[in-house]
Amino acid sequence: MSAPRLAGTVRERILSLAREKGQVSRGEISQAFSMDKKAVSVAVDRLLSEGILAVNGVRESRSGRRREILAVNGSHAATVGIDLGATHVIGVLADLSGTVLDRASYDIRPGLPVALILDQMRTIAARLVSTPRGGGARAIGVCVPGFVHPVEGTSLVAENIPGWKDVRIRDALQEGLGLPVRVEDASRALAVGERWLGKARGERDFLVLDLGFGIGMGIFIGGSLYRGTGWKSGEIGHTVVDPRGLPCACGGRGCLETVASGRAIARQAAEGIRDGRSQLLGELTKGNAGVVTAQDVGVAAGMSDPFAMELLEAAGSAAGLALANAAAILNPSVVVLGGGLVSSGRVFLDAIWKSADRHLMPGMRQDLRIVESELGLDGSARGMALIASERIFSGT
Amino acid sequence: MSAPRLAGTVRERILSLAREKGQVSRGEISQAFSMDKKAVSVAVDRLLSEGILAVNGVRESRSGRRREILAVNGSHAATVGIDLGATHVIGVLADLSGTVLDRASYDIRPGLPVALILDQMRTIAARLVSTPRGGGARAIGVCVPGFVHPVEGTSLVAENIPGWKDVRIRDALQEGLGLPVRVEDASRALAVGERWLGKARGERDFLVLDLGFGIGMGIFIGGSLYRGTGWKSGEIGHTVVDPRGLPCACGGRGCLETVASGRAIARQAAEGIRDGRSQLLGELTKGNAGVVTAQDVGVAAGMSDPFAMELLEAAGSAAGLALANAAAILNPSVVVLGGGLVSSGRVFLDAIWKSADRHLMPGMRQDLRIVESELGLDGSARGMALIASERIFSGT
Repeated sequence: MSAPRLAGTVRERILSLAREKGQVSRGEISQAFSMDKKAVSVAVDRLLSEGILAVNGVRESRSGRRREILAVNGSHAATVGIDLGATHVIGVLADLSGTVLDRASYDIRPGLPVALILDQMRTIAARLVSTPRGGGARAIGVCVPGFVHPVEGTSLVAENIPGWKDVRIRDALQEGLGLPVRVEDASRALAVGERWLGKARGERDFLVLDLGFGIGMGIFIGGSLYRGTGWKSGEIGHTVVDPRGLPCACGGRGCLETVASGRAIARQAAEGIRDGRSQLLGELTKGNAGVVTAQDVGVAAGMSDPFAMELLEAAGSAAGLALANAAAILNPSVVVLGGGLVSSGRVFLDAIWKSADRHLMPGMRQDLRIVESELGLDGSARGMALIASERIFSGT
Repeated sequence: MSAPRLAGTVRERILSLAREKGQVSRGEISQAFSMDKKAVSVAVDRLLSEGILAVNGVRESRSGRRREILAVNGSHAATVGIDLGATHVIGVLADLSGTVLDRASYDIRPGLPVALILDQMRTIAARLVSTPRGGGARAIGVCVPGFVHPVEGTSLVAENIPGWKDVRIRDALQEGLGLPVRVEDASRALAVGERWLGKARGERDFLVLDLGFGIGMGIFIGGSLYRGTGWKSGEIGHTVVDPRGLPCACGGRGCLETVASGRAIARQAAEGIRDGRSQLLGELTKGNAGVVTAQDVGVAAGMSDPFAMELLEAAGSAAGLALANAAAILNPSVVVLGGGLVSSGRVFLDAIWKSADRHLMPGMRQDLRIVESELGLDGSARGMALIASERIFSGT
């Protein structure tokens, strides 16, 4: 009879350390957790026999002792991560180390009926699950903008998707595919991606400012994802940047999202086109102001269109102010700028930096690195695949 | 030979649980930490023989088994907590359950030389330490506004105390008194007070908005005090509530402190007196506008002085906005309104409530209770005495 599979905290800690460090020795594990060497060896042996941990070679210490180099065996299992946004469904199949094995995506025009969006999500999930790569997916994670109920697997409300309310994501996917499904907020999924694969590796207290069609924030405190009392943390898009600002969909006024979200940038650009304030944007959209996107504005700003530059400067400036406010409260080591708008170009990003510098106390600023995500559009989906893999790490 | 004293985590967990619940049985301890009953009994017996835990009676369970009721023995040791603010030095001698045994305080006029402030602090500490009550103090805690270096025991900078920079609090006190000294931020000390003695008992994720001469925030995440990367968390006073607002001492513009701090309220009141906008405030200060305090404004507002009411409404409205912003990011279960300004009366507090309601998303608001502290002016000092007692709890 083989030894029972290792489950629970020791297992998770060893695997997390191995994933974080890339490679690790038995001695380093023992040191990191003040664990008895024998107990570490028993646990490691079980994880090796299960195949989730692998020996990646041997290192000779100065004293001549040979030490195995241990690493998470990425190919042990694969999971699917799906980012269901207001403008896209992006799915990835990733192995345990977060390497993407396959990818599928679909662009959503704002206003598409909820049933059609869910159909697209199911189609993409089914395609990725049926891929033989990685030995077949063992779990699915779906992230959505707005409030979620991770325990029930429900997306409660997404203001930026019309008609989206109490959508039972888990039920919608489990029915057809029979795999366990995790549901989480998209900005939190992005933060998990940054923590393990991106610019926040090894950081304990950091924030991810997720600038897309809407705006959210992922928060890590003490090395763990922070969700808040009702799983609603991170609504920086609805912090007030100007009490005399525009009314917001949330019922408030002057929220960050009214100025700096992709939705707000597109709305202002459409108005500008109608008012004849940007010939270039008019040309880019062939006179159909209603279809202009924040991406178009980024392109126009890159071509030095004054109106587009002005829009993005105002957006970046507001985002920098909100970032400074969050940092003043939480004193993080890093803020990662992520989400689709990060590709809007330097005008936008420079305005964020300048505004954050202006609004942050010097003592607070000196503790903080502001960095730009390099995970691109797939960041949330990749983070979500990692969240889905947590059950494989915990052995449950 | 007696058994060695219990030290470390198990000890702290048992004592913390006992302090939190007021009283606890061995079975409840075992259940709370999934700990072996025998291990619990060994640990509890040691704490009983040390005298830090006491048997407070016996309860009979339904099955007829007799169970000891255990509680922290408050009188086992005492500590001193000192709150060194811009307008006061408040010291308390408290027992291990946080009960105040003695108290001393001194009012500071803004602008007093640093050396004199430190003298007052030493005088108060010496007096409380020499009190025989509680068997004599075993540790001292000092909290100050602004950035601290808890490891070095230094108060780095307090913008609201002129000339205050890199003040070595621990050295200043250890010299004369020979007791261990902890240094912490005053709003964090208040949060610890609220957690164990006040309105946040048993809460895991909560905020304390500390409204005084300056404005700070104490943050608990997952049941623990959160300090931030460089021990600078909680600077809500320097979050921007109006980008077109007044310049702030921190170098920014439109910070909460420029409108809602005791300092800002007093400054605006002095201007109002000089401009003849409030006869009542003029009378209360006998024509010497320079000595008016936020407390005077509270008194005047209580007597329906329109100018004073307007000032406090604007201050409360700004504080409510900043509170809403912090809550949108952190989704706490409770925000406690504390600090000296809480006694400014209903006009101020109602404005905070109204503003928070207006600016918070409904879904976020429904998770949140906003409550007023009942610890009064001594909240930070009492919390600081508890922080000083941590070394007795940890057995180090």
